[in-house]
Amino acid sequence: MHESLQEYLKQCLTDDRLQRFDEVVKFRTRHLTVVLENVFHEHNASAVLRTCDCLGIQDVHVIESQNNFAPNPEVALGASKWLTIHNYRSDPEPSDGSPSNVSVDCIRYLKKNGFRVLSTSPRQDSLPLSQVTIDQKTAIVFGAEQIGVSEEAISESDDLIHIPMFGFTESFNVSVSAAVILQHLAALLHASGIDWRLTDTEHGELTERWVRQSLGSKLEPLIRRFEEEQMAR
Amino acid sequence: MHESLQEYLKQCLTDDRLQRFDEVVKFRTRHLTVVLENVFHEHNASAVLRTCDCLGIQDVHVIESQNNFAPNPEVALGASKWLTIHNYRSDPEPSDGSPSNVSVDCIRYLKKNGFRVLSTSPRQDSLPLSQVTIDQKTAIVFGAEQIGVSEEAISESDDLIHIPMFGFTESFNVSVSAAVILQHLAALLHASGIDWRLTDTEHGELTERWVRQSLGSKLEPLIRRFEEEQMAR
Repeated sequence: MHESLQEYLKQCLTDDRLQRFDEVVKFRTRHLTVVLENVFHEHNASAVLRTCDCLGIQDVHVIESQNNFAPNPEVALGASKWLTIHNYRSDPEPSDGSPSNVSVDCIRYLKKNGFRVLSTSPRQDSLPLSQVTIDQKTAIVFGAEQIGVSEEAISESDDLIHIPMFGFTESFNVSVSAAVILQHLAALLHASGIDWRLTDTEHGELTERWVRQSLGSKLEPLIRRFEEEQMAR
Repeated sequence: MHESLQEYLKQCLTDDRLQRFDEVVKFRTRHLTVVLENVFHEHNASAVLRTCDCLGIQDVHVIESQNNFAPNPEVALGASKWLTIHNYRSDPEPSDGSPSNVSVDCIRYLKKNGFRVLSTSPRQDSLPLSQVTIDQKTAIVFGAEQIGVSEEAISESDDLIHIPMFGFTESFNVSVSAAVILQHLAALLHASGIDWRLTDTEHGELTERWVRQSLGSKLEPLIRRFEEEQMAR
């Protein structure tokens, strides 16, 4: 019997668990991605992660140039465990001595990787949500509470978007705003002919990560046992 | 000069304020309404009120048979001041001695007034949000945290609706769920040919209430002064 480590680890999870991975991975997408720029309230950070998991959005880009990102585990319900979080932090001592802007770096990176970057902002030239199209890979930037998306991030973005508001209160909380925008765009994506699913390779890699995540503290001993068994053969 | 009390009170507010009332009232609707059944976390209750104000949904029906509804003023940002809140509480001693179900009473009242009642529930026979139509006046019922909409309310409802979920986490927080559903339906309404706006009479009555609300503690002295001036003529 020639068995891979991955197969060996899988056997330690229940069939129900593995079946759930299969169901969930099928709806994961990298066509739509999220950027959180200095969102600092733990309740909001966690709620956005939970929304991304619920809607199948796999990647979240977290910019922490001003504030630390500290999701509240009770609100996130473990969502970050299943997502791919990309962190962007300020380099305390840049090698060339020039100040870098982490938000600009993150957005340029996404654009170089084929993303159209849309920042949420209530400004005049901002598109209402109903007019947003998602033919191209799309990244949505959400800004810090009160402050909103930074000037630098806005000028690097391809377009601005907003949820139309009709009342006395003129803004949604960032976690509510993210849920409304992402749910709308995810539904648009699912109804489109766009090939938004993960590739077979990504599918395999992600499932492998989830298997390891699920094993938690059991992972290391299992890997050691597998290696010993292989050696003993 | 023959001047009504309403005209007199209006003069005590700035033109900007009155113009804002005109802008907001134009987007108010009673075609879509919200029922909160025993939502008890003050953060959630407040966030739903804020969402209703933002989207122009004027009426909120609050059922408090199990829990008290206590919006948090900081989250609601004064939204309840501009909404029409209808309260449904248990009668501690019903006159005919029979136990009444407040949720059933509320839903029957809405149905008698021409509303199609949709309860949010993840059950099998629940419609995904994208399939919900709003040709008829529509009420959306949101249930208590954890528990969801009660069995009694579900059996009185015309249909069930849900937001499709694709991740490990299988539910949104009630304030997020309400924002997603109501924003989707409000956008659908605005894009439709439905006559969803308030009538001229409702428009006038609501503006009158807002004028009085805005005056706060100045209202009573102003009314007295108006009456004295009328008498002195």
